[in-house]
Amino acid sequence: MNFASDNVTGVAPEILAALAAVNAGPAAPYGDDAVTARLEARMAEVFETDELAVFPVATGTAANALALAAVAPSYGAVYCHASAHINTEECGAPEFFTGGAKLIDLPGASGKLWAEDLAAALSVAGAGSVHRVQPAAVSLTQASDFGTVYDPDELRAIAELAHAHGLAVHVDGARFANAVAGLGLAPADLTWRAGVDVLSFGATKNGALAAEAVVFFNRALADGFAFRRKRAGHLFSKMRFLSAQLEAYLADDLWLRNAAHANRMAARLADGLGRLPGVEIVYPVQANEIFARLPEPAIAGLLADGFAFYRWDETPEDGLQGGASREGGASAGLVRLVTAFDTEPAAVEALLAAAERHLGTG
Amino acid sequence: MNFASDNVTGVAPEILAALAAVNAGPAAPYGDDAVTARLEARMAEVFETDELAVFPVATGTAANALALAAVAPSYGAVYCHASAHINTEECGAPEFFTGGAKLIDLPGASGKLWAEDLAAALSVAGAGSVHRVQPAAVSLTQASDFGTVYDPDELRAIAELAHAHGLAVHVDGARFANAVAGLGLAPADLTWRAGVDVLSFGATKNGALAAEAVVFFNRALADGFAFRRKRAGHLFSKMRFLSAQLEAYLADDLWLRNAAHANRMAARLADGLGRLPGVEIVYPVQANEIFARLPEPAIAGLLADGFAFYRWDETPEDGLQGGASREGGASAGLVRLVTAFDTEPAAVEALLAAAERHLGTG
Amino acid sequence: MNFASDNVTGVAPEILAALAAVNAGPAAPYGDDAVTARLEARMAEVFETDELAVFPVATGTAANALALAAVAPSYGAVYCHASAHINTEECGAPEFFTGGAKLIDLPGASGKLWAEDLAAALSVAGAGSVHRVQPAAVSLTQASDFGTVYDPDELRAIAELAHAHGLAVHVDGARFANAVAGLGLAPADLTWRAGVDVLSFGATKNGALAAEAVVFFNRALADGFAFRRKRAGHLFSKMRFLSAQLEAYLADDLWLRNAAHANRMAARLADGLGRLPGVEIVYPVQANEIFARLPEPAIAGLLADGFAFYRWDETPEDGLQGGASREGGASAGLVRLVTAFDTEPAAVEALLAAAERHLGTG
Amino acid sequence: MNFASDNVTGVAPEILAALAAVNAGPAAPYGDDAVTARLEARMAEVFETDELAVFPVATGTAANALALAAVAPSYGAVYCHASAHINTEECGAPEFFTGGAKLIDLPGASGKLWAEDLAAALSVAGAGSVHRVQPAAVSLTQASDFGTVYDPDELRAIAELAHAHGLAVHVDGARFANAVAGLGLAPADLTWRAGVDVLSFGATKNGALAAEAVVFFNRALADGFAFRRKRAGHLFSKMRFLSAQLEAYLADDLWLRNAAHANRMAARLADGLGRLPGVEIVYPVQANEIFARLPEPAIAGLLADGFAFYRWDETPEDGLQGGASREGGASAGLVRLVTAFDTEPAAVEALLAAAERHLGTG
Repeated sequence: MNFASDNVTGVAPEILAALAAVNAGPAAPYGDDAVTARLEARMAEVFETDELAVFPVATGTAANALALAAVAPSYGAVYCHASAHINTEECGAPEFFTGGAKLIDLPGASGKLWAEDLAAALSVAGAGSVHRVQPAAVSLTQASDFGTVYDPDELRAIAELAHAHGLAVHVDGARFANAVAGLGLAPADLTWRAGVDVLSFGATKNGALAAEAVVFFNRALADGFAFRRKRAGHLFSKMRFLSAQLEAYLADDLWLRNAAHANRMAARLADGLGRLPGVEIVYPVQANEIFARLPEPAIAGLLADGFAFYRWDETPEDGLQGGASREGGASAGLVRLVTAFDTEPAAVEALLAAAERHLGTG
Repeated sequence: MNFASDNVTGVAPEILAALAAVNAGPAAPYGDDAVTARLEARMAEVFETDELAVFPVATGTAANALALAAVAPSYGAVYCHASAHINTEECGAPEFFTGGAKLIDLPGASGKLWAEDLAAALSVAGAGSVHRVQPAAVSLTQASDFGTVYDPDELRAIAELAHAHGLAVHVDGARFANAVAGLGLAPADLTWRAGVDVLSFGATKNGALAAEAVVFFNRALADGFAFRRKRAGHLFSKMRFLSAQLEAYLADDLWLRNAAHANRMAARLADGLGRLPGVEIVYPVQANEIFARLPEPAIAGLLADGFAFYRWDETPEDGLQGGASREGGASAGLVRLVTAFDTEPAAVEALLAAAERHLGTG
Repeated sequence: MNFASDNVTGVAPEILAALAAVNAGPAAPYGDDAVTARLEARMAEVFETDELAVFPVATGTAANALALAAVAPSYGAVYCHASAHINTEECGAPEFFTGGAKLIDLPGASGKLWAEDLAAALSVAGAGSVHRVQPAAVSLTQASDFGTVYDPDELRAIAELAHAHGLAVHVDGARFANAVAGLGLAPADLTWRAGVDVLSFGATKNGALAAEAVVFFNRALADGFAFRRKRAGHLFSKMRFLSAQLEAYLADDLWLRNAAHANRMAARLADGLGRLPGVEIVYPVQANEIFARLPEPAIAGLLADGFAFYRWDETPEDGLQGGASREGGASAGLVRLVTAFDTEPAAVEALLAAAERHLGTG
Repeated sequence: MNFASDNVTGVAPEILAALAAVNAGPAAPYGDDAVTARLEARMAEVFETDELAVFPVATGTAANALALAAVAPSYGAVYCHASAHINTEECGAPEFFTGGAKLIDLPGASGKLWAEDLAAALSVAGAGSVHRVQPAAVSLTQASDFGTVYDPDELRAIAELAHAHGLAVHVDGARFANAVAGLGLAPADLTWRAGVDVLSFGATKNGALAAEAVVFFNRALADGFAFRRKRAGHLFSKMRFLSAQLEAYLADDLWLRNAAHANRMAARLADGLGRLPGVEIVYPVQANEIFARLPEPAIAGLLADGFAFYRWDETPEDGLQGGASREGGASAGLVRLVTAFDTEPAAVEALLAAAERHLGTG
């Protein structure tokens, strides 16, 4: 049973069906099709604003890097948490797409960036000094890479500080649905109402085949984006199949239902593990990721049982880099468990039972 | 009835079925899955060599730009035909991915680049001169953007010249299947046996949803490619769905059957139109594209009838650029008709009948 | 005696003296010094406007590439003559600095770009089409690489067309002084009054050690330029020594006196050669470069005598590239003779006498 | 009296004289001149090896960024100290020249990077993981930005670790002369004998007008460098004037004599200040920079007296960025004093006397 990541999942049946549904007959290429037009209207409903611009792409790395290239010049600085996917997991995509902008990674409890740390970094950033990359944007991960979420007040505090310094606010929402479902708030409350300028709206981890959308809440920032997407090879000729995934994802709140299920499974898993002796739940479980410290024998036993999950201190793919390496270094016995839209309750119970057994309490 | 492009088509049923077939259960992400492993083995069979490296991506622009970035340094020159897609239709993707390499566009009858013209360009290229971008690669389009194909001798002549000057040979094979089917030769005869180093192997235009593969026949050139693909946002987490499209595309020669059908439809259309008074077929029809000169009234009539196709002299998307603009300028009355894997014989007959009527011969 | 290029010259005594003159005592680095402040004021006088922004750099390639990066986005197209230095002699610097913008090279009599050719190219450029690089700038070389000059009407025709299409107008003025001296007009008449937005103001070829200035006549375009210059490594810590060269260059019209001398030497040389049998002066001699066709024996004889000059059809450094290669190919017997601020009349007479002798008319 | 930086100085008389000395007559451009040829031979003597390649450029930022672009691919990671000039003072030049490589900044006592910290960072770097930028180089600053130096053992420990992981070793030697003079060792002992692959050999801060040299001790790494230098606008047409500065710099050990003087002045200043009550010398003074903590009144008094120097906690140009900001934040009352080749003993004594007075001990 697989708790390694939400990217090992397949495609939600509703989304697979949508691909077949839009397949009949010819359609204008490159987004000039009816499905894409419907998607934009639907996005406006979901986010309660007409002031947006929507650009479907196929991967989260593309969404993030293209979004950052739209808000940061080649001589810009992008502030993010040390554990941010853009900083540790995208092989330098933001640097490539921006033409060499610099990510300034900051520490922050629970994988979240805090206004105080951003303020401190900006105070020594040298804005205006020709020797320094110029503060251009802040990128937040919602839900964060440690499974925590930003509430509207936390977002607003960062956004106000950012805007006061002329920075744009980007949100990497690869797990945005899990954050929205977890907080039970309107998407608008976690985006433009809180000061977010551009969102990487994720769908792949939550049931799509390969679909994300870059959503601008400040259309002026979208200037030239269509050209950047094309020259990056991310404009699909048969766009209807990207848009159809996102349309189905938003239909009947599938995105929120899928995310809520994943969150429930994570909560149940965290609750059960937390009751076991010698187990520590490291971060608040606010979405679909659990970081837990377990005794080595229990970890070994669970892996031997065939449960799939990452040891946080072993796997580079999910480890941390540079300034954050100290954390990685200290995380012996730390594991990450990820639930998804298709995680079965029985799998959760099975893992809990096995853990109980390995901890000698069964 | 739509003859505008082969990218207005949907997905071939076999390929759509393959997506559903690989959906069950979890799979390792980023290409470490069984489907991708099978695809590589199948590609080796198709191309009759184990000396290849295969990298699935979702778009032709990504395939071309990533392939060129693998063979041309930032200070390199890439030689191509003035009408090449990489030169006119990709919004500068090759320049972006290579870090600013220069495309040197050359003229050439029937949309094909000829060894003589390449030799002439290389003779004034200033290889070794620090003031000049350095000849690094030649890129051919097979089938060409004018619906013509290169035979093995033509490819070999260019490849030998290129290799003698230290250039790598890239083939943009967005319509490679149509070329293979048109020539009735082995894929190997049109690639590594003729000196091709890297191929953008297209599937999207010929029945896939969104799938191409960069195929290196010289593995040394693939060094670092995996990192470039990732940082360009073109590594899919749910890779099995890219690989499954390509696997189904190659199964039971679907790719060649689809292409052969498109080619037959094009041949029939060209043959029928060519018999009509006042109609000129401009280039040999060797794949699935027809370029024809028709009297203005006939063009207007066909469009009024609802037949969809591009006027070559009207639409920037398909026009030419820079050095090739003279051609575009002279192409009054020129239209492009494209057939595809799903073009129905009845549609071809209907267009011919309508053309006959508009030309007053019906 | 050396007629190979004006870049084989040394430094004018007035400029060498200026370096020593500003050497005493410390000075604020990076341009915050008194000399640089004076230079900006002097530039405003020379160009009769306060609406400029001046950025000294050390090389012409840096000036051109930084200026183009300021006016063309990474997805932009820059129109220039096929023989333009930026297109043939800078190893792709504009592509590097812009992040992959595309140079669209156009033909044009006498090395000059004409409004008609630019209009034709723009008509098929596909402005607004996501598939195309977007027209962003036109770059003119004044004096041109063939020693000809643009008069204000020619500049204005191009600038009006460019601005009507949203393009910025850049002038590569590596030999701007020779053009101003040749036309006997005010610098303003050949720049902002004619619609030029940004000028690469050259000094190196005309007596400086290594000094050029990027001069913006539209300050909005200079936004961010200071950061681009710094990150390109072109901001000098001891800036006073760059500024001092330019200050001395402009003092007492040294720049125009030097250029006028070079032009006179070229006129005398062209006049003398033109009178000799079998000699053809290929382009109007309007600055300090002469392109002449001579019988092979005369060329061989002059080289044997020790006169240094380039055979236009032999040397890659000065040959043409890509679309312009046909011209290069046809230039058998074509030579380029360049005069400079320090060319001695005796050298000119010596070459004329030798040529006369080799042509058997002596 | 100016202790702000060694870049506020003018040009050493020997170097100014050299510019005049090489001015007579024409010279082949772009480095094909006699002066440049002599420089290469002289460099081989100074570094006791013929296995080098020397490329003069005009600025330290250009030298560093070009050197790093030669050893790090666009998907590479470059490890450096958080306070490294390449990380904090070059406006992202390394990111620009490499096409988006990532600097991984590490902490380290006294501004030096230590093998232990590099080893820890490499252990979580994810070498081979497609999601991570790939470790490509380590860059050390010698003398460091805090005025400390690496001895051969420290260099060797880092170089052996780096090479074992396939990283190249770069040294930013903007103050290399001060390190060599301070340690009293052979240049070879601090470069290739200790495992250094490429050095940014500085001259500007130590008496040149604007001259540095990129020196490769591993010629294979210099492949393509000449093209990168040209397309970056850093190849001077009148190269003899760059080479002449470096030739004079190396003649009669001028570089070491100038550096030794600056170091002596720094030692005297540190010694004097260190004896005063309430003054703390923060880092070992091993070159020509002093970092000292002084009571606020003393700092204010010295500035009021007209002594020029930077408050480390006030000036962005010299502050720290990102991960290092904590240090900057804590440095209230910290000042940096820099001596140079032309610092007069009287100026040092004057500052000491004034400090004594302001500290109420005079």
